[in-house]
Amino acid sequence: MPTQEEMKAALQGYVDGFNAGDPAAVAALFADDAVVEDPVGHPRIAGRAAIDEFYANAVAGGAKLSLDGPIRGSHGDRAAMAFTVEVPAMGMRIRAIDVMTFGPDGKIVKMEAHWGPDDIEQ
Amino acid sequence: MPTQEEMKAALQGYVDGFNAGDPAAVAALFADDAVVEDPVGHPRIAGRAAIDEFYANAVAGGAKLSLDGPIRGSHGDRAAMAFTVEVPAMGMRIRAIDVMTFGPDGKIVKMEAHWGPDDIEQ
Repeated sequence: MPTQEEMKAALQGYVDGFNAGDPAAVAALFADDAVVEDPVGHPRIAGRAAIDEFYANAVAGGAKLSLDGPIRGSHGDRAAMAFTVEVPAMGMRIRAIDVMTFGPDGKIVKMEAHWGPDDIEQ
Repeated sequence: MPTQEEMKAALQGYVDGFNAGDPAAVAALFADDAVVEDPVGHPRIAGRAAIDEFYANAVAGGAKLSLDGPIRGSHGDRAAMAFTVEVPAMGMRIRAIDVMTFGPDGKIVKMEAHWGPDDIEQ
């Protein structure tokens, strides 16, 4: 299991990858067989090709992320963060809380993004 | 499935119950067969008696909660919030992110609290 520091660094890397416009850096945080549920309640996507495509589109859309407070760890294989997504081109703001589950090699195996219809401002 | 508003009201009620020193109000948000994992990675507790006892102790300890930004919903049966717990008597601060899963009757059926050893300040 990765350490708390390693998990938190991965979540910070997720934020930084978006803000640097670097989708490959974001996708590289995930295991090849990872599952992404963004938002929770929508169909999950799974696997390397789907994840690469998902983040290519998300980063190309110009989304910039800012943390709402420190990244949290756990006493297990999960870490979580609350953040605000700004998409200036769409005049859109989304408030989300992402929970990431990690595999033994430190890659993200599951990502669950909590945001609902009411968490978008336009 | 409860509405976004109902789920968010339950999470706000959780915060308010702590801050009012009212453990019964907090425990009443949970289904009788709910599961609480606080923190994630520690053994879960389950069922009415265990949940009542857990929150009686937590509230008696003087923990006060303040939200770090708005409560988030989802497109499903979950809502989440980032908050800071202050326990003045112990000079302790914990930064947590809780994810609650709801049953069809609007009661919480699962609570997962994300905070690690590094998320406590003393």
